[in-house]
Amino acid sequence: MNPTLEIFSQGAEIVTGQTVDTNAAWLSEHAVNMGLTVTRHTAVGDKLDDLIALLREISIRADCCICTGGLGPTSDDLTAEAVAKAFDLPLEYDAVAFEQIKRFFTLRNREMPDSNRKQAMFPKGAERIDNAWGTAPGFSLQAGRCWFAFVPGVPTEMRHLFLESIQPALASRFLLHPDKLVTIRTLGIGESDIQQRIGAIEIPDHVQLGFRASPDDVQTKLLFPQNYPEAAMTALVDKVAAALGAHVFAIDGLGWASGDLVFTVGQLMAAGKHTLAVVETASQGLLAAKCLGAQWLLESRYQQSLEKLGQSLAIALNADDLPSSAQAIASEIYQTGSAEFVLVQLYSGDDKTFHDKDQAIILYNMLLTGDGSHQTTHSVAGPIERKQNQATLLALDLLRRYLQHKEF
Amino acid sequence: MNPTLEIFSQGAEIVTGQTVDTNAAWLSEHAVNMGLTVTRHTAVGDKLDDLIALLREISIRADCCICTGGLGPTSDDLTAEAVAKAFDLPLEYDAVAFEQIKRFFTLRNREMPDSNRKQAMFPKGAERIDNAWGTAPGFSLQAGRCWFAFVPGVPTEMRHLFLESIQPALASRFLLHPDKLVTIRTLGIGESDIQQRIGAIEIPDHVQLGFRASPDDVQTKLLFPQNYPEAAMTALVDKVAAALGAHVFAIDGLGWASGDLVFTVGQLMAAGKHTLAVVETASQGLLAAKCLGAQWLLESRYQQSLEKLGQSLAIALNADDLPSSAQAIASEIYQTGSAEFVLVQLYSGDDKTFHDKDQAIILYNMLLTGDGSHQTTHSVAGPIERKQNQATLLALDLLRRYLQHKEF
Repeated sequence: MNPTLEIFSQGAEIVTGQTVDTNAAWLSEHAVNMGLTVTRHTAVGDKLDDLIALLREISIRADCCICTGGLGPTSDDLTAEAVAKAFDLPLEYDAVAFEQIKRFFTLRNREMPDSNRKQAMFPKGAERIDNAWGTAPGFSLQAGRCWFAFVPGVPTEMRHLFLESIQPALASRFLLHPDKLVTIRTLGIGESDIQQRIGAIEIPDHVQLGFRASPDDVQTKLLFPQNYPEAAMTALVDKVAAALGAHVFAIDGLGWASGDLVFTVGQLMAAGKHTLAVVETASQGLLAAKCLGAQWLLESRYQQSLEKLGQSLAIALNADDLPSSAQAIASEIYQTGSAEFVLVQLYSGDDKTFHDKDQAIILYNMLLTGDGSHQTTHSVAGPIERKQNQATLLALDLLRRYLQHKEF
Repeated sequence: MNPTLEIFSQGAEIVTGQTVDTNAAWLSEHAVNMGLTVTRHTAVGDKLDDLIALLREISIRADCCICTGGLGPTSDDLTAEAVAKAFDLPLEYDAVAFEQIKRFFTLRNREMPDSNRKQAMFPKGAERIDNAWGTAPGFSLQAGRCWFAFVPGVPTEMRHLFLESIQPALASRFLLHPDKLVTIRTLGIGESDIQQRIGAIEIPDHVQLGFRASPDDVQTKLLFPQNYPEAAMTALVDKVAAALGAHVFAIDGLGWASGDLVFTVGQLMAAGKHTLAVVETASQGLLAAKCLGAQWLLESRYQQSLEKLGQSLAIALNADDLPSSAQAIASEIYQTGSAEFVLVQLYSGDDKTFHDKDQAIILYNMLLTGDGSHQTTHSVAGPIERKQNQATLLALDLLRRYLQHKEF
């Protein structure tokens, strides 16, 4: 069993929803990679009784806990006081911490307000966590079953203190056996289809299989225990990936850099020194925008009406025959532009269908390259946001399939 | 005392830090605006015992709770089972839910896998929350002190179900006394500038003033107690808005529909039955993509190189003279296209400057309309994501200023 870790975030701004708690995710990801099992995130506001109750709960429940926030100089920064009350410890003045706080202000040519003195008060027995990145030092202490580390909620300070102080402390306190997570990322196939395709593959008991559907992909996750043999791991991943075929666009966790579909396409385009021109309809600029700063994307155009698109290119298009229209558009852009590939993304379905979440549009993608044209067709329903996002991804995926497999 | 609400997020992807829990913040903000006091956020993974323990805790501690996630078809979706176990209720088959799930697949021309059947099983006594936005219906039930609502974790689905079902249910179950929050949304002006501009305005003691900077705007927030006189409230808001001048693009909370900059522009364009063509450079398709499904956006084009843009339009452009280049591009598109307005967004700064977060690019926007051309210039630094987002917003803001004030 891995040691368990909880994340505890303090602050009215989090509990009232004014700030999204990105600290919890960042800390969890790092903790999981070290071999800790993160069991809970909890956020509470700046209420002393809530803080005390939560600290006591966690001290019984978890092996360790990282707490962010509540270390500032103002009256709603209550962490040290709450810890003192929760575990019946007096607050003691730390002269070194006080000098650090004073120095922070001196370096910035500012006078230290009196209120900052309270940041040098720690519960008896706490170890100071020096903070070169802000005014508030953190501290750690053991209470009941749990080793607690308290750090400021400012993300930059928190990250530095975690990497420099907390991570080494955790590594020396606990015997950690990090698991190995492999994530197989797919597009154009649903969670239940994936389960059916891989149903016949035997997954050993101590390997955890999981799924995750996001707007941008569906992920099949295999979590291997630390000492799982490398060859067996690779063999199992290969088997699962093979069952999912060309839907797989990336595999994370096998040692090489990987990322989302745009990242994969970007790698492939850059590796082959390819260039691209895009014509977007349903995706309405989203495709170009997703390829943020991509050198290989030379141009893109969006036109609401196929008729107007034809006029602006001075070619005749037929809305009832998307393949021949796409071919005509692609040829025109190919001849007049300078890009090596032309990707044309059309759809059928009137405006009402496009906006109606209960109706599906048919997406027609064509990729024109030096060795001919390649196409895919998909039916996509859902809210317009989903249709536009899928239009973007499925068009890019046609390009990815061409570059990766020449398979469609 | 306001009723207390807790947010409970289920999912390994949250607890392990792979997903930042944006649902909790969104729900909290909406709940606080309704007059609820949010006391805790908790996230746990897909472990049945953890879920059961947490549900029982909350059922004693809070007046209501919104739970996201764990309603999917796979084996790690455990919410209904956990609720049943926590409160000793049998799971019952809901024929209506089953029909809805089947219909979702039928509409998409897909066969429903057997595994989806479990999404139609609810704990006895639960009320179904219909979900027209995805496969999984939600449900609500009273357990102990707490009224629970369970919805999928997919943000679009969660938001729809909250607004359409949960919000009205909360409003009818609890006697709520919401404070009144007015938010003045601005673009092109920083937090400290705002503070200086409104520094001389007297804010009554029981009105809370706050600020919030996001990538898309800077918000000045005025929180009025429930019984604050309407006329005094309007007078104060007017005074603050007047001090911020044409930077104000929307005011939320005064009873009329308002939203972000894109929403404001959309309203203005639709009201005047205007149409627009866009040429993007720095924003790279992001402008078109932000105007999701806008009927008034007829076309947009992105070209990486100004030279190529000139070639494709068959006009000569001078990279050292953005105003005359913008004028030439706008005139050409105005003459050959059918849009009433043409918005051209150019920038100066080489590729290195564009990608370097420590260097600024100069954004030059021109809007060509029936009554002439209007322009703005801005210097924007920061990571490329910020530059592209600001390029998008500042170009749209030129259009907004023209439509709202004819002031630039």
